[in-house]
Amino acid sequence: MSAYQAYRYGIQVGALTSSSGNDPMEEVTPHCFRGSIHDFETLKALADWADVITLENEFLDGELLEKLKHETGTPIYPSPSSFRKIENKRIEKETFRDAGIPVAPFMVIQQPDDLKDAGTKFGWPYILKSSKGGYDGYGNATVKNIREASEAFMKLGGNAGREVIAEQRIPFTHELAVLTARNEHGMVIYPCVETIQENHICTKVIAPARIPRALRVQACELAAAATEAINGKGLFAFEFFLTADNAILLNESAPRPHNSGHYTIEACITSQFENHVRTVIGLPPATADMRTPVAVMVNILGKVNGAAIAHNKQYFGFEKDTHLHIYGKKDCRIGRKMGHVTVLGQNPEECLRQAKMVDEGIVL
Amino acid sequence: MSAYQAYRYGIQVGALTSSSGNDPMEEVTPHCFRGSIHDFETLKALADWADVITLENEFLDGELLEKLKHETGTPIYPSPSSFRKIENKRIEKETFRDAGIPVAPFMVIQQPDDLKDAGTKFGWPYILKSSKGGYDGYGNATVKNIREASEAFMKLGGNAGREVIAEQRIPFTHELAVLTARNEHGMVIYPCVETIQENHICTKVIAPARIPRALRVQACELAAAATEAINGKGLFAFEFFLTADNAILLNESAPRPHNSGHYTIEACITSQFENHVRTVIGLPPATADMRTPVAVMVNILGKVNGAAIAHNKQYFGFEKDTHLHIYGKKDCRIGRKMGHVTVLGQNPEECLRQAKMVDEGIVL
Repeated sequence: MSAYQAYRYGIQVGALTSSSGNDPMEEVTPHCFRGSIHDFETLKALADWADVITLENEFLDGELLEKLKHETGTPIYPSPSSFRKIENKRIEKETFRDAGIPVAPFMVIQQPDDLKDAGTKFGWPYILKSSKGGYDGYGNATVKNIREASEAFMKLGGNAGREVIAEQRIPFTHELAVLTARNEHGMVIYPCVETIQENHICTKVIAPARIPRALRVQACELAAAATEAINGKGLFAFEFFLTADNAILLNESAPRPHNSGHYTIEACITSQFENHVRTVIGLPPATADMRTPVAVMVNILGKVNGAAIAHNKQYFGFEKDTHLHIYGKKDCRIGRKMGHVTVLGQNPEECLRQAKMVDEGIVL
Repeated sequence: MSAYQAYRYGIQVGALTSSSGNDPMEEVTPHCFRGSIHDFETLKALADWADVITLENEFLDGELLEKLKHETGTPIYPSPSSFRKIENKRIEKETFRDAGIPVAPFMVIQQPDDLKDAGTKFGWPYILKSSKGGYDGYGNATVKNIREASEAFMKLGGNAGREVIAEQRIPFTHELAVLTARNEHGMVIYPCVETIQENHICTKVIAPARIPRALRVQACELAAAATEAINGKGLFAFEFFLTADNAILLNESAPRPHNSGHYTIEACITSQFENHVRTVIGLPPATADMRTPVAVMVNILGKVNGAAIAHNKQYFGFEKDTHLHIYGKKDCRIGRKMGHVTVLGQNPEECLRQAKMVDEGIVL
């Protein structure tokens, strides 16, 4: 979706795509570079073609990005040095903790014996995470006792040399998210939104979050500080926990447009995708103000396994301020993010009802 | 710009592009079919690939479209039969006149002697137009006397068998435009806007038009009637003259998204491009309401001849509700449409000032 905004500025877009040729990007540009994100020659082919490179993926290797920038001279934003400060969950937490931003207490599990210490330190249950590669609940486990902890540690690859961290489980009342767009010209901060997860997948976003304004402002300030802490140039997403006693802890960050910001396409004067493009090509980030008091985004998750064909077209037509996006993925799987719908309005519950109706009606 | 909206619905897009390979569409899809719009084999290759075909160009040949639909079975919207009702300026005027829609008085110039009769009938000056192929002032001439009329008739190809029509010159106070989106599910009508032309090129659009509401409503009703008259399925643009005594005459129509509707990208809940896609794929047209009281669009015309590189980047950054589009054309020519800027707000004069500032600042 960043590509469409680049086109709108008259910019040509190339992309690194999977070698399957099945990538939705293959449909929207003739300039695809197929291969693994870990293959230097593929990365180099893209870098030689491009004037500037940006990321939509945090599973890249920071060292390889550093080398790519060094050898080709093609600028990369977010920069490899910013990227390396949040490259995996441990480093990310250390970076933000050292910048004075509250994060959930954590420790690295060096050896299976540490699993018990983590239980003593954080209480049971706590959370085990692989440092790298987790998303939408993959690479995470909540463990209630030492047996579950040992199993999860194995499953996460801890025995096979993959770094695993233990994290105190934070009993939160809300999950929040804030986007920032920053470069040498300045920074804009998007509204603090509320994200609702089901089975570890974000299913809904409510903008702004239904919490007191002062707390929203605080989350925005933390997001700004976190962006500064990594000297970020580009578009960044930060996810927070809000606890019952109104503490706000930074949970995760992403150096790219984020699912929690899809609502910005219609709801904000400048979408996250446009500010992604603007910041990486060196234009000042443009205003992130919302157009309407409320926006609700609901993810459309796959309801069937098979070819992705959208049925129940009557739900595609509506009089209200309702906006449907289908991603053009060729294969549908149950639970896979296939699209989303955003509803703008005055009242969050009403917007949510309308968005759910559309989501439930569309079988994909 | 319709392509980006198709992508947003998960639709693959192919396009007929010029054989030069220099077409901006070449950058936004891998599925380009290069060749002339008058070459049946090229059209057929596209039709065989596609599930549905739509138009962004009225210079096509209606008979060829009819044949294409017949031989390949691929639906075409707007349909060849709608297209043929407005295929050239004479037929278009006859169609709308017969449907009871006011048009400027006109006559076909069968032979040079008719040029004088037109002068007697319409008074001098009057307007000569080639029936087919005119745009942005090309293919039009205002003639003050028989000598100018004879010269223009020659220049427009009247002697070489091209059909030329004479039209009474309408002294208008405003030029207006209205878009409609219609298919089997219904029709939506966009606001009546004011278009400002300089040297026969639309340079500015002010939405809504600064005329009494009753007149805007009347223009919208005429646009709806004109859409019905051709049984239109798709997105249509209608241009009108408003005279000093408040008569509204239909001047031109286009069976496609139109420059007068670029403001809808940000200013309307559903843009002309989205409703173009929706109507041709069979979804109900979605609401065309404006988001803000006022929108102004200013075309960014080329200020230099040469490679299209945008300078003066400071004008790309703004705090207000200002939206820049650069079309990605590779060559810039003085006066060529290279992009546009839309400003949303409360007051037309203020929006116009802001849009002009951006336009004047950008050297392209």
